[in-house]
Amino acid sequence: MKASVHIGDLTWKDYERRVREENAVVMLPVGALEQHGHHMSMNVDVLLPTAVCERVAERTGALVAPGIQYGYKSQQKSGGGNHYPGTTSLDGATLTHTVLDIIRELARHGVRKLAILNGHFENSMFLVEGIDLALRELRYAGIDDFRVMTLSYWDFVNDPQVIEQLYPDGFLGWDIEHGGVFETSLMLALYPELVDMDAVVDHPPATFPPYDMFPVVPERTPAPGTLSSAKTASKDKGELILDVCVKGISEALGEEFGG
Amino acid sequence: MKASVHIGDLTWKDYERRVREENAVVMLPVGALEQHGHHMSMNVDVLLPTAVCERVAERTGALVAPGIQYGYKSQQKSGGGNHYPGTTSLDGATLTHTVLDIIRELARHGVRKLAILNGHFENSMFLVEGIDLALRELRYAGIDDFRVMTLSYWDFVNDPQVIEQLYPDGFLGWDIEHGGVFETSLMLALYPELVDMDAVVDHPPATFPPYDMFPVVPERTPAPGTLSSAKTASKDKGELILDVCVKGISEALGEEFGG
Amino acid sequence: MKASVHIGDLTWKDYERRVREENAVVMLPVGALEQHGHHMSMNVDVLLPTAVCERVAERTGALVAPGIQYGYKSQQKSGGGNHYPGTTSLDGATLTHTVLDIIRELARHGVRKLAILNGHFENSMFLVEGIDLALRELRYAGIDDFRVMTLSYWDFVNDPQVIEQLYPDGFLGWDIEHGGVFETSLMLALYPELVDMDAVVDHPPATFPPYDMFPVVPERTPAPGTLSSAKTASKDKGELILDVCVKGISEALGEEFGG
Amino acid sequence: MKASVHIGDLTWKDYERRVREENAVVMLPVGALEQHGHHMSMNVDVLLPTAVCERVAERTGALVAPGIQYGYKSQQKSGGGNHYPGTTSLDGATLTHTVLDIIRELARHGVRKLAILNGHFENSMFLVEGIDLALRELRYAGIDDFRVMTLSYWDFVNDPQVIEQLYPDGFLGWDIEHGGVFETSLMLALYPELVDMDAVVDHPPATFPPYDMFPVVPERTPAPGTLSSAKTASKDKGELILDVCVKGISEALGEEFGG
Amino acid sequence: MKASVHIGDLTWKDYERRVREENAVVMLPVGALEQHGHHMSMNVDVLLPTAVCERVAERTGALVAPGIQYGYKSQQKSGGGNHYPGTTSLDGATLTHTVLDIIRELARHGVRKLAILNGHFENSMFLVEGIDLALRELRYAGIDDFRVMTLSYWDFVNDPQVIEQLYPDGFLGWDIEHGGVFETSLMLALYPELVDMDAVVDHPPATFPPYDMFPVVPERTPAPGTLSSAKTASKDKGELILDVCVKGISEALGEEFGG
Amino acid sequence: MKASVHIGDLTWKDYERRVREENAVVMLPVGALEQHGHHMSMNVDVLLPTAVCERVAERTGALVAPGIQYGYKSQQKSGGGNHYPGTTSLDGATLTHTVLDIIRELARHGVRKLAILNGHFENSMFLVEGIDLALRELRYAGIDDFRVMTLSYWDFVNDPQVIEQLYPDGFLGWDIEHGGVFETSLMLALYPELVDMDAVVDHPPATFPPYDMFPVVPERTPAPGTLSSAKTASKDKGELILDVCVKGISEALGEEFGG
Repeated sequence: MKASVHIGDLTWKDYERRVREENAVVMLPVGALEQHGHHMSMNVDVLLPTAVCERVAERTGALVAPGIQYGYKSQQKSGGGNHYPGTTSLDGATLTHTVLDIIRELARHGVRKLAILNGHFENSMFLVEGIDLALRELRYAGIDDFRVMTLSYWDFVNDPQVIEQLYPDGFLGWDIEHGGVFETSLMLALYPELVDMDAVVDHPPATFPPYDMFPVVPERTPAPGTLSSAKTASKDKGELILDVCVKGISEALGEEFGG
Repeated sequence: MKASVHIGDLTWKDYERRVREENAVVMLPVGALEQHGHHMSMNVDVLLPTAVCERVAERTGALVAPGIQYGYKSQQKSGGGNHYPGTTSLDGATLTHTVLDIIRELARHGVRKLAILNGHFENSMFLVEGIDLALRELRYAGIDDFRVMTLSYWDFVNDPQVIEQLYPDGFLGWDIEHGGVFETSLMLALYPELVDMDAVVDHPPATFPPYDMFPVVPERTPAPGTLSSAKTASKDKGELILDVCVKGISEALGEEFGG
Repeated sequence: MKASVHIGDLTWKDYERRVREENAVVMLPVGALEQHGHHMSMNVDVLLPTAVCERVAERTGALVAPGIQYGYKSQQKSGGGNHYPGTTSLDGATLTHTVLDIIRELARHGVRKLAILNGHFENSMFLVEGIDLALRELRYAGIDDFRVMTLSYWDFVNDPQVIEQLYPDGFLGWDIEHGGVFETSLMLALYPELVDMDAVVDHPPATFPPYDMFPVVPERTPAPGTLSSAKTASKDKGELILDVCVKGISEALGEEFGG
Repeated sequence: MKASVHIGDLTWKDYERRVREENAVVMLPVGALEQHGHHMSMNVDVLLPTAVCERVAERTGALVAPGIQYGYKSQQKSGGGNHYPGTTSLDGATLTHTVLDIIRELARHGVRKLAILNGHFENSMFLVEGIDLALRELRYAGIDDFRVMTLSYWDFVNDPQVIEQLYPDGFLGWDIEHGGVFETSLMLALYPELVDMDAVVDHPPATFPPYDMFPVVPERTPAPGTLSSAKTASKDKGELILDVCVKGISEALGEEFGG
Repeated sequence: MKASVHIGDLTWKDYERRVREENAVVMLPVGALEQHGHHMSMNVDVLLPTAVCERVAERTGALVAPGIQYGYKSQQKSGGGNHYPGTTSLDGATLTHTVLDIIRELARHGVRKLAILNGHFENSMFLVEGIDLALRELRYAGIDDFRVMTLSYWDFVNDPQVIEQLYPDGFLGWDIEHGGVFETSLMLALYPELVDMDAVVDHPPATFPPYDMFPVVPERTPAPGTLSSAKTASKDKGELILDVCVKGISEALGEEFGG
Repeated sequence: MKASVHIGDLTWKDYERRVREENAVVMLPVGALEQHGHHMSMNVDVLLPTAVCERVAERTGALVAPGIQYGYKSQQKSGGGNHYPGTTSLDGATLTHTVLDIIRELARHGVRKLAILNGHFENSMFLVEGIDLALRELRYAGIDDFRVMTLSYWDFVNDPQVIEQLYPDGFLGWDIEHGGVFETSLMLALYPELVDMDAVVDHPPATFPPYDMFPVVPERTPAPGTLSSAKTASKDKGELILDVCVKGISEALGEEFGG
């Protein structure tokens, strides 16, 4: 059988050995099925964290669990809003319990080090809740050494020089990076067949009032669904981001979870 | 962008068109992360229904939603039991609510025809419950024309001649086909790099008393985790099964959901 | 006070003694309120497992807990479908939590051996989930020796000679036995006043496609609600079945739970 | 088939007719499995409301649904506390959802008039919540004419002359009637084989501070589990109570639900 | 910083010291936002138990946690019914989980003595359930010395002489005291600016049948929403009640939780 | 009775008039009981949004509902972490259902305009989920014109000149403002008796890695629990913030909800 960092590709005997003998770190990518504008596929938030996990796992000896394919509801200021067709979201409790159940099972296998790599901003707090409920329950089971790292790969792109390379005309914040230069560049580097740069709509960055309205006011999201223009996205930028993220996350795993 | 039957590979505009103009059938593969013996990877129950969905979709114009990667707890008589390392299962309510949430969102998009293709026997009733809760809720929302088909691809292998080709020495029932000739043949046809035929343990079919015990009595499952021997599995058998399933399911979709 | 195998008929002192001193097995019948055709009452799925429990308890010294009167939703291929008037079903989570709560309480009393006797096929997986949640929680409470057996009495009718006696013209499988020869014979042996053999509709066995549709397509169920004809049911067959089940289940209890 | 007021004893066709043509009232007895002292069985809270329902149904043409066998946790001041062996209680949410599910199904059948007859004081608020959630949900389904009456049969024993006959030495309130004169007299009238008057412990009425403690302080409950002495219970008193309750409840049904 | 019995007014260091060094009792007032007639504000059920808690805390050294502001649904016979505008109620499970969560956190802080002071009758059983779930969970965490007292301040007004002073024309029971002499007198003593005695509607005491109807029959509640007339309420009566309650509850805390 | 913007201070008749005749906006402050360092009380997150609501309500004619007193679990990077004594947090689902229940009831009253003013960052997504579930359910009830605004008052302090006045040495971001200049200044302006400026610990701003660890690593939070020093807080700054927030929020209400 082929070598693989994916748990799903292993037999249970191989997995058991990796966990029990090597105390391997498990990485869990969490995404969404969400519109990403006219120019990009809807699986971006799954594909990107999965790709980062794969590369980090290859570098560090971690394992990658099957990714969570559906995420929490898209919010207008970070993902355009949940009113678009195609965006397919879970209730918060469903996502929370998915994480809780997976951690409970990993703990049964003997895993004690988990890194959850989030590719969809809106998931964050529901992942946190799933982790908190899981660690609480594990304590009832007498397990108190299970540790979880959560990370969003974009938080590792924090070197001003890198930011300057990505956004020579100025960086406007991660919030409006939905379907913009950042994600599009990564997709061009990783899955160019899922991007159509000709279909990019070059609109000004979205601006929002300092509050949110429910139901969402659809016209406040730029019509294509992106929050900033991906026009200056490029494969090179994507590779730069990927390098920075993979290196930063690998180091973070090393620092927290050891060699 | 490349053509694809996967919803995740589409832009929201393309998806919207397929759903609103073509009233496309959506197929949802549901699997599990579950041990499948010493000779096969743990993602079998996701890979197989996904592969069947892809082929049916290509034939019929259906779309394929991202698969549910984790399933309900493995039962001893159908999957060996949930005590194996690697087997990573959800509570029933988590699976049920995942299905409910996905259906609610598909209905919002305008989808009215859903086929849930199950690759892990233990999921069945929790899928049924998710569907029932979803259709009930849709009725509150005034939607009463959403229809769901559920199917397990193995139920389409019911031609005695096919059974005879697969099991020339006699067929012992689907229950003990966990990691046996059926699944292994399909994996050989589709993902040979995830099978190691040299590692097949050639044990006699599992036998169980006419009741179940909880906690499971581990020694009642053959040690490798399979319930029957995969020794006579072959790529050819896998292709035969695949043909039969794809054809049968395509016809079923046609009959229930129209052209 | 009269002697009784029913927990409900005992004082708490008597129950306490049976549990603490004799470590008695508790049996829990689980049924449904479900249509069973034109010729039979709707309490069949409660009455039959309760009657079996009583007889097994008399033979083995087990105790019988009050039966669960409502079950999971009737499925078309096993019970005709949940669209009939009279069929009164619980959501899966309600049934699961009922089982969980009962086990938690039995464990508090000191019970460590429980046999759940299911009379309604559709209950199975929700019972399993209730047991799994209960045993998990008991482990948090430091109790890890609580064991549960689940059984459906029809699974003990597996002697080919008995099958031949019951179905001289050939056995078509348990799935279509809803309201058929099997259940009707048992009712004739146990509760003849709840059967009207003149009202039996002698229709051919139900046939279904290899998939399920939701909402159900009502016309696929034979109109009376039974899935096969009860015409050849008889009191004698019922007594035979009862003998076989009571003997088999008594032996199973003995094997798993001891003398 | 025998005539019966019990829904479970009817075929679905007969039930359908009673509901659709006669708009029959359905009565649902709700009980508990709870200790009732050294002298009485633990099924009192199910048997008594069921018996009352049967008699009311015979008088009024109502139907009786299968009783809920397990109730909410026994409270010290009304049932002695939930720490006794044998007392087997549900979490509040389980009871609430059982009621919700049953109402949803009755409404589907066409029932519009339900009387829930409670035999276990502690159930009350969880029944109320189940009804409230059910009626809310029915409104979403467009059903706004479903009405529910809840009643505890002891509330119909409010004629001072009757109270005087039952308690010639003075009535001390319903709260401490757990296993006392009231319930024991009814059991003597209805199920004398489940009462052992020789085993009655003749203790003074329980007294409690004006607050509750959790966990319960067991020694505050009289040791046998009863809250007052059943010594003066009698079959005659039981028949008197039964007459009063059946008459009162029948009239109440008539007033609220019509002839 | 000012001295205060309110936990919210303390720094965490001060709170920590009070809990860890002094093992302080924590009091939790639980109320409702509920109509209280034409003459009184809707926060009565929060203000009154909070005021009692403050005074008891000053006397005994207890601490007061922030009150729960919303309670369970108003019932017709105790609060007029939940159909009034302004009455803003929680589902039972929400209230139960609020209590559960607060207890879990207090236990983490080191608190072991909690007194829940209820100001809204309808809350009672959902508080009980929250406590039961919490203590169960604490046991899984190895904490078995957490004790909870629940009390309704009116239960401490049980001295016949006091009752006589409050109701010289005879006491009709706590059930109909909603917005009547009792609560209004307390409000006059504590928050006279939230009472308008000129707006009191002097209606006869509400009378109800010995059962409840759902949906509520609005006309059975006296139109202003009160269940008895507050006409004879007075500041003096309020002060008397307050004295009795504060003294009685302080003593109860002393008896159960020590000096 | 005194005039008041607080719903709790009104009679139901006054409230009804304000809602039905004036279509008043309702404001709901949501806070937490959370440590805020050595120098400040733990009720900051409730007091501040409540004070802002009061002032906005006075200006705009809105009403203020009783605040939610307990919030979601404190996160290390925004509130120091949930491991401090005193911090008393709800599970996410409890907070979500509290919001859902309140909205359902407000809708029943006739309210159609709600502004939720959040004072505790960690609450945000669970409020969003509560709103989403509520609006979904209201649609089933046929109500589709209920609108909710969510806002965090600090988001209205976005004028660079104001930021400059508050942070003459440079603004480091809202994330580390827990117990810092911003909140402390507001408390000095509003509740000086709950602040002890002598107890401020003048530590450098907290720095964190670009990921989170669970369980939290306590030493990463500055020991007093604040994330930046409040040393330069002042009453004047607090009044400035208050003016800006009240003005900004009042305008926002006007824009979205009209007059």
